Amino acid sequence: LANIHLLTPAGFRAFGVAAGIKASGAVDVGLLVADDLATAAAMFTSNKVFAAPVEIGRQNVASGRLRGVVVNAGNANACTGPLGLRNAQRMCQAAAGAICCEAAQFLPASTGIIGHQLPMDRLLTGIVAAARDLGTSNDHATAFADCILTTDTRRKTAGTQLKIGRTVAHIGGVCKGGGMIGPRLSLPGRKKAAPHATMLAFLTTDVQIAPPLLRRLLNDAAQDSFNAVTIDAHMSTNDTLLILASGRSGMRITPGRSAASFAKALAEVCQSLARQMVADGEGATKVVRIEVRGAASDRDARAIARAIADSLLVKCAMNGNDPNWGRIISAAGMCDAAFDPARAALQLQGVTVYAKGVPCDFDAGALSQQMKVPQVDVLLTCGLGRAAATVWTCDLSDQYVHINADYHT
Amino acid sequence: LANIHLLTPAGFRAFGVAAGIKASGAVDVGLLVADDLATAAAMFTSNKVFAAPVEIGRQNVASGRLRGVVVNAGNANACTGPLGLRNAQRMCQAAAGAICCEAAQFLPASTGIIGHQLPMDRLLTGIVAAARDLGTSNDHATAFADCILTTDTRRKTAGTQLKIGRTVAHIGGVCKGGGMIGPRLSLPGRKKAAPHATMLAFLTTDVQIAPPLLRRLLNDAAQDSFNAVTIDAHMSTNDTLLILASGRSGMRITPGRSAASFAKALAEVCQSLARQMVADGEGATKVVRIEVRGAASDRDARAIARAIADSLLVKCAMNGNDPNWGRIISAAGMCDAAFDPARAALQLQGVTVYAKGVPCDFDAGALSQQMKVPQVDVLLTCGLGRAAATVWTCDLSDQYVHINADYHT
Repeated sequence: LANIHLLTPAGFRAFGVAAGIKASGAVDVGLLVADDLATAAAMFTSNKVFAAPVEIGRQNVASGRLRGVVVNAGNANACTGPLGLRNAQRMCQAAAGAICCEAAQFLPASTGIIGHQLPMDRLLTGIVAAARDLGTSNDHATAFADCILTTDTRRKTAGTQLKIGRTVAHIGGVCKGGGMIGPRLSLPGRKKAAPHATMLAFLTTDVQIAPPLLRRLLNDAAQDSFNAVTIDAHMSTNDTLLILASGRSGMRITPGRSAASFAKALAEVCQSLARQMVADGEGATKVVRIEVRGAASDRDARAIARAIADSLLVKCAMNGNDPNWGRIISAAGMCDAAFDPARAALQLQGVTVYAKGVPCDFDAGALSQQMKVPQVDVLLTCGLGRAAATVWTCDLSDQYVHINADYHT
Repeated sequence: LANIHLLTPAGFRAFGVAAGIKASGAVDVGLLVADDLATAAAMFTSNKVFAAPVEIGRQNVASGRLRGVVVNAGNANACTGPLGLRNAQRMCQAAAGAICCEAAQFLPASTGIIGHQLPMDRLLTGIVAAARDLGTSNDHATAFADCILTTDTRRKTAGTQLKIGRTVAHIGGVCKGGGMIGPRLSLPGRKKAAPHATMLAFLTTDVQIAPPLLRRLLNDAAQDSFNAVTIDAHMSTNDTLLILASGRSGMRITPGRSAASFAKALAEVCQSLARQMVADGEGATKVVRIEVRGAASDRDARAIARAIADSLLVKCAMNGNDPNWGRIISAAGMCDAAFDPARAALQLQGVTVYAKGVPCDFDAGALSQQMKVPQVDVLLTCGLGRAAATVWTCDLSDQYVHINADYHT
């Protein structure tokens, strides 16, 4: 399935160009366009400080139908006031003008520095250039995947197929992460989802599905993927997750068995993208998978996993391959969740290091060697109930500090 | 008042010795002893994972009377099970034996690595040695101040005097910080105080005061000092704040005017110590003072100040002298508090960088130069109400990562 990409689902075209917004000169403006009006669902940051494109995006996706997304990297268009709002609308107008649809049928998305007005001349020129060369090849998908990157060191793509009877449909996706990654995506008009980028993620599928069901399934998929990862716990002003469904496969998804199949495939793509985000977190040298079991409630399980995932001390220990389990247990105890150290047990890379209030004998040197891997597994069993949660984080390296101390306004 | 120290208040003796618990060979075991039974109040970590000395300390301070405190650094005696509890009691027995009182009249305190049993032979030898050389000089106070340090790079002491009529009394204190500093000290048996080391702080005074009033005034003083600082937001298993009152000045503190005078002096000492902790945070190059005004409630003001103080991105920007106000505003918006970016205004070092939803013109290069100082001031006005809070944090440097990635179990 490695060759399934953003433009494998039938009915979509995309491209990305270098418009001179990123100082590096890399591709920074892109379009993803459906051939016809597509079913659309989106989730956005729950930060009370949200960017202009998020405000316009919430409005435009409310109808459940979109023609596409227009994106830029290098400037977040956040904290930019009324002019910022007009500029986000102008992005949509330019994209819509280029493909002959209405501006409200586009969702705008931006990522980059906060508090600067978009360079509209360059941006609009870029939108027109991207629209001229839209296509369906892997190279077109790649250009779009690249134009949303900021401090990411690599492109993030995923895709899968699902089969119901003889009908085959696809889901493709791209995302960007880097820093300011602690998403708490929520559906417009709903309460906050779970606790915690600019993360941007765009998904395509060729199934037929009604907007309310697509919204619900997207929300479900986000909880155990984008809303279950953290790099630095700082929720961005611009986080956006969008899915467009063209219906071109002829596969109809309705509540019941077909929805379950689609949900499973969607979860797979979202989880792959979310993990790629963590693995490429700013300065990250490894991924840390934190699984909490036996918590008193789902909320508690997630709170404990997040407290561990967001602890600077735990993240530094992971960077140093240090089986410093005391930092993990103490992080579990400091959050607002039921926790009893006398009932808890902790495994690092499958080695039990702590159980029921006392340390276990283990070879710290050998375990440290076992931690020199791309992914470290932490398993905390609470002994209080049946609730479980898994959160993905990365280590904290001196490179994270360099990247973020030297990124100047 | 710079010469007022821990042993300036009449009625106390102290000392610290090197017992071989710290690998460095520095002083690591100490005693602070009142000549007679003193009025005592203490606050402890609100982490659900708390060390053996915290458990024994809560029990022993419940009477409101203590003879003293016995401390060690280099080992936290946390997550050490029943043996850890017995060892904390043996610390008290050894100290009590040396000065001929009851074991329950001592409060034990430990700081260092979690999950290792105390080296009791060395510790007990150290306690006897410290007891033998107790004294009241500045050198004795210094030895005690030094024996509680861990990753601290310098000693932390403070002191003041208060005068009511012709009577003069004193308050002295010492503390340690370093890392795992995000205290949320609470009185035993009470609910959690505010949100968010091992921090240890020991205060002495020679006023006469009843235990309930001393507890209340200590709790008040802690909220705007120790509970208003953060280095890494990781609440320790061992945080302990203790005050002992000998009554030897003859000054009686009762509810009313004398309590107000004492409260003011106590706040001064606690705030000095707490700020010294932040200034000497692991890897810190500067202090950041975050003041939030105009919030909808006290709780909101504190939540917003803390979200800013604990943001890795804000802390990295401070390290790089980067007036990256977008990170500050977005941190304010991500916490669970009322916040409206259109009503907010932000000052960095007295320069308004953002007001009412839009960036302000300012000279980023000049402001960056103004940030190359020991203390950076952030002032966020919310425009929503009258509540205010101030939180003190430090920047995040690559040194923090090195210290905590290389501190091996």
